[in-house]
Amino acid sequence: MPRRDGRRPDQLRPVRITPGVAPYAEGSALIEMGATHVLCTASVEPGVPAWLRGQKRGWVTAEYALLPRSTLTRTRRERNGPSGRTQEIQRLIGRALRATVALETLGEQTVNIDCDVLQADGGTRTAAITGGYVALALALNHLHTNGVLAANPLRCAVAAVSVGIVSGIVLLDLDYSEDSSADVDCNIVQTDTGAFVEVQGAAEGLPFDRAQLNSLLDLASQGVATLLEAQHIALG
Amino acid sequence: MPRRDGRRPDQLRPVRITPGVAPYAEGSALIEMGATHVLCTASVEPGVPAWLRGQKRGWVTAEYALLPRSTLTRTRRERNGPSGRTQEIQRLIGRALRATVALETLGEQTVNIDCDVLQADGGTRTAAITGGYVALALALNHLHTNGVLAANPLRCAVAAVSVGIVSGIVLLDLDYSEDSSADVDCNIVQTDTGAFVEVQGAAEGLPFDRAQLNSLLDLASQGVATLLEAQHIALG
Amino acid sequence: MPRRDGRRPDQLRPVRITPGVAPYAEGSALIEMGATHVLCTASVEPGVPAWLRGQKRGWVTAEYALLPRSTLTRTRRERNGPSGRTQEIQRLIGRALRATVALETLGEQTVNIDCDVLQADGGTRTAAITGGYVALALALNHLHTNGVLAANPLRCAVAAVSVGIVSGIVLLDLDYSEDSSADVDCNIVQTDTGAFVEVQGAAEGLPFDRAQLNSLLDLASQGVATLLEAQHIALG
Amino acid sequence: MPRRDGRRPDQLRPVRITPGVAPYAEGSALIEMGATHVLCTASVEPGVPAWLRGQKRGWVTAEYALLPRSTLTRTRRERNGPSGRTQEIQRLIGRALRATVALETLGEQTVNIDCDVLQADGGTRTAAITGGYVALALALNHLHTNGVLAANPLRCAVAAVSVGIVSGIVLLDLDYSEDSSADVDCNIVQTDTGAFVEVQGAAEGLPFDRAQLNSLLDLASQGVATLLEAQHIALG
Amino acid sequence: MPRRDGRRPDQLRPVRITPGVAPYAEGSALIEMGATHVLCTASVEPGVPAWLRGQKRGWVTAEYALLPRSTLTRTRRERNGPSGRTQEIQRLIGRALRATVALETLGEQTVNIDCDVLQADGGTRTAAITGGYVALALALNHLHTNGVLAANPLRCAVAAVSVGIVSGIVLLDLDYSEDSSADVDCNIVQTDTGAFVEVQGAAEGLPFDRAQLNSLLDLASQGVATLLEAQHIALG
Amino acid sequence: MPRRDGRRPDQLRPVRITPGVAPYAEGSALIEMGATHVLCTASVEPGVPAWLRGQKRGWVTAEYALLPRSTLTRTRRERNGPSGRTQEIQRLIGRALRATVALETLGEQTVNIDCDVLQADGGTRTAAITGGYVALALALNHLHTNGVLAANPLRCAVAAVSVGIVSGIVLLDLDYSEDSSADVDCNIVQTDTGAFVEVQGAAEGLPFDRAQLNSLLDLASQGVATLLEAQHIALG
Repeated sequence: MPRRDGRRPDQLRPVRITPGVAPYAEGSALIEMGATHVLCTASVEPGVPAWLRGQKRGWVTAEYALLPRSTLTRTRRERNGPSGRTQEIQRLIGRALRATVALETLGEQTVNIDCDVLQADGGTRTAAITGGYVALALALNHLHTNGVLAANPLRCAVAAVSVGIVSGIVLLDLDYSEDSSADVDCNIVQTDTGAFVEVQGAAEGLPFDRAQLNSLLDLASQGVATLLEAQHIALG
Repeated sequence: MPRRDGRRPDQLRPVRITPGVAPYAEGSALIEMGATHVLCTASVEPGVPAWLRGQKRGWVTAEYALLPRSTLTRTRRERNGPSGRTQEIQRLIGRALRATVALETLGEQTVNIDCDVLQADGGTRTAAITGGYVALALALNHLHTNGVLAANPLRCAVAAVSVGIVSGIVLLDLDYSEDSSADVDCNIVQTDTGAFVEVQGAAEGLPFDRAQLNSLLDLASQGVATLLEAQHIALG
Repeated sequence: MPRRDGRRPDQLRPVRITPGVAPYAEGSALIEMGATHVLCTASVEPGVPAWLRGQKRGWVTAEYALLPRSTLTRTRRERNGPSGRTQEIQRLIGRALRATVALETLGEQTVNIDCDVLQADGGTRTAAITGGYVALALALNHLHTNGVLAANPLRCAVAAVSVGIVSGIVLLDLDYSEDSSADVDCNIVQTDTGAFVEVQGAAEGLPFDRAQLNSLLDLASQGVATLLEAQHIALG
Repeated sequence: MPRRDGRRPDQLRPVRITPGVAPYAEGSALIEMGATHVLCTASVEPGVPAWLRGQKRGWVTAEYALLPRSTLTRTRRERNGPSGRTQEIQRLIGRALRATVALETLGEQTVNIDCDVLQADGGTRTAAITGGYVALALALNHLHTNGVLAANPLRCAVAAVSVGIVSGIVLLDLDYSEDSSADVDCNIVQTDTGAFVEVQGAAEGLPFDRAQLNSLLDLASQGVATLLEAQHIALG
Repeated sequence: MPRRDGRRPDQLRPVRITPGVAPYAEGSALIEMGATHVLCTASVEPGVPAWLRGQKRGWVTAEYALLPRSTLTRTRRERNGPSGRTQEIQRLIGRALRATVALETLGEQTVNIDCDVLQADGGTRTAAITGGYVALALALNHLHTNGVLAANPLRCAVAAVSVGIVSGIVLLDLDYSEDSSADVDCNIVQTDTGAFVEVQGAAEGLPFDRAQLNSLLDLASQGVATLLEAQHIALG
Repeated sequence: MPRRDGRRPDQLRPVRITPGVAPYAEGSALIEMGATHVLCTASVEPGVPAWLRGQKRGWVTAEYALLPRSTLTRTRRERNGPSGRTQEIQRLIGRALRATVALETLGEQTVNIDCDVLQADGGTRTAAITGGYVALALALNHLHTNGVLAANPLRCAVAAVSVGIVSGIVLLDLDYSEDSSADVDCNIVQTDTGAFVEVQGAAEGLPFDRAQLNSLLDLASQGVATLLEAQHIALG
């Protein structure tokens, strides 16, 4: 059974990362993975959350939102607080990006990564991590180049991809229609040293065995490698 | 005193309206007026607000938001309800766009116009009206062409522009820095028959006399005429 | 077509302004315009909003509410935040009243103008401005007389009135039934020097042309003159 | 130690109940007890709360609010939900007034009693009950007279008064300054048959013994008798 | 008519108070009165509410909640703020427990009494007061024993019980089924010196006369005496 | 380096599951894993969420909360909506338990699993899944035994456990102090057929490689096997 868009099971959608799209932000990137487009900006603000104050450490956090018509039918704005799903995604993006930064060398400032989905066709949270990393790296380079920070606190790169099992086949980088019919849906975040920052696999339908998990992880690592390369090129 | 960007007092910023930018929406347009960029989408949904039910009329409404980094410094998302300012802007956009539609021929459906500001450099609410009209017109054409509506409910075009008084000079289409130092700030919405749909003038500093109001209205009408032409071209 | 209550098109409803009705407030006034009754109080409180701190300037702000049974049928209390309409009215009242005060001579204190509608028959927001001015003036006189302020920061008077077009006729001071059937509804705020602080005109039905706008403004200025006189008498 | 306003320990403040003050409401009354003024309106609305539906019974409920400048210093509007204190007062007023009505003969409609405090000098919740009863009775008479209800569902009258112990003395009808320094504060609601609907006594300072409780109850019953008479006169 | 569980009208349900059930809390107790079980913990935290700051006094406050399945059918968690009923109960518990403490000797710290109902069969608020006292006493003893406080601020004991009138009979310690059919429902809080801290009696059905009130108070005092004894034993 | 409580790296804490602790619930269990105690109840309610209506399927959902003094220092109640962390935990528990039920045979009813943490010493979310399964199974048995359901919709058992890496050592069933210093923290949910329902691994400190992930999964599977046995015994 071929994929709707003709891809092989182990093939990513076409990836394009455009850095610097938001002129006012300290760092920004537009990431397109097929029909999924996410605008990522990095904003540096003085201060850290209350529970971190006085520890001479910085913080990196993320927000995520869908534009109302990024989706096939209109999605309501979350004006009464973010939903559980949104908060879970934001926490994942934040954790993934914090893994790349030596927070103790950032000083008491916060980098907010805003990930606004302009078009959604599956894999928005992993695209947000991959694109968010570029925005974050640009903002940290900016702080370093401008002399605000003596050393660049960036210690590695991360990228993320989804993998899943649809009709028994292990697939890389699910689009929305594949995601909707998947039995297993995983999001994998890996660094450029090949280590895992986050492994999240959930059976929406049939549970999965250890062999299937291994195939999923192999496929994800391969996809992440390609994405890390695209980030590298975007960062010049 | 020349304007920061070299414009004459009676000159608009460069205008560009790109229709059809949001592939999932029934209608959409990206409007750029200088560094102010607003993404407008029109979403058609069945049903009308509770107070309109059973009257066989349709409804047009608008939502407005700033992307967090559309602004020089980061603007927080309005996740605990829209602010007073946001609600006032949304109501203005909605009123302006409803003036163009024969609601009694739309049937019991609602057109939501979402205006998301990608970059903000003053005049976002008037740009949202001008761009929102294009998205709305595309959606209504779509409903008509597809046979959902026997007749096209669109009865006129509207566009909007800001005018103001800065250091005693009457200016067309204020950018953010001009707006911040204006004594008087007006938003004018006019149809393609030259009639006013909305006249809003407020003295933030010195009050204004009748002669000044007349100059402001003359200048606005001239700017609106140019914008109506740009809409016309965008709609092909 | 005569008006329901027999008024000429250019005639205000009977106006009565009773100062000092709230014994605990620094300033207060009850304004009655026909069956529209608004209780206005001015409360002086130390401090200013966060964004103004440290600038040695004062602030004037307004709140507006309907008593539940000020209306023909019961209106719910706004206990989950003010509605968009309420916030828009509050912002209008606040802007209008700030125009009368030299904020830089008020010191870091805030005057809250509370406008509570006891009975509503159209024109409540303009009545709130006209009555709110009297409450504000009394509070500022009080601060000056008691030596809290060396100079009285009041620099002019303002009053406001509604005008509109009903069945093609330009009318002054619309009551609720006229307002409900108006094609155009304007609120005009003017100072005692004849200058405009705010001009708000909206076509709810048919748009209006320049000649009609001129008639509306002429009629409003005439109404405002009468209201300024009533304020003057109330302030003794 | 004489009372600040010269009253005897067993003396009410001057009471005035003006019926019919709110022309749009089905019933209304302004009650003044000294400097405490409460505007009470009764609004009849179709339907009952969800948990009562289908039982062919009516409902009576109450809301209570302070106008911002009813108090010596400004009290904020409760726009993020009523406080615990407000809800407790509303529940008390509602229970007290429901005791006067045969709800099974009211039909599936709700009477909302809105109690808005124009001036507060202690005893606002008991004044609200006493005045609210008059508004409620007028509304029920109105429904009966107009033929909406075959029989008048009113089965008794209620009035309420506060009593307390200040510096060891048992006092009737405490004003704000007395209430602030009271060791014991009670609110007593009684019917015109002399029965209790509610007895609420709380020691803010020293606890009270059985003999003191008896004195408080005796004094309250005497005050309630006078208030029932004032209600009777107001209802003509 | 015998009681469902065979008790005499003047008989409490079996009472068991287990101290120290929550190992992390400064004080705790599980109180069981028949099928009503309430877990009470006392948490000592630095600081006092804003309005008390700088007065060198402490504070005691209470929170109350039902576990969702403490009730016959599931009760929703109060995640959008506590209901009016919950706030009223919390205020009652807090007032009752504050009456036992010399707050001026507690220092600027707050004792939070959390009362979580594990099983609810009527009388949960009075059980919370009786059990909460034990948790509070243990926490204050702990502070005194550990030398945090030079003197123990506890000045008396309190316990609480419900009484009511069901089918004309005066009953002690109503269970849920009795409470549901009671004409009168009272909660009485008394100290170990026999004084009242709180008397709350409400007629849900028929009002009650003075003689009935006296019987209710006599019965409550007898029940409170037994509960004070149980507290005394639990505190060893 | 031995574990604080003397356990071997691959050893669970003592587990005790007591079924039927909540007499009003359709199913319930208290699970104790060392000092972590979670009370789980299953409540069957008619109806399903709006988006599932009319599909003749049932639903299983979960709520999770900490009692305020389940923790070393007091944790505030979540009365302004559940936090992001709480929602993420609730979604995990719900997904895990839904995996055990053939929802299409449950009919249009919802089983709410409430997980209230009485004492928290790490691993509360996995304990909630393990204990929640017992409550759910009891409720479904109850529906089947009582003839409400023709067939028992339970299709497998699930249990969950945490594993992690602390100071380079792979540990089973982390307590709070271990969890706080872990570099990697995983929660694994498995069925009694050995398949994974959920694999969640996050690097809080150092990222982890594939070999470490394999050790973690091996250890978790061994722990889950023991927990499934304990569930089996509890269910008799």
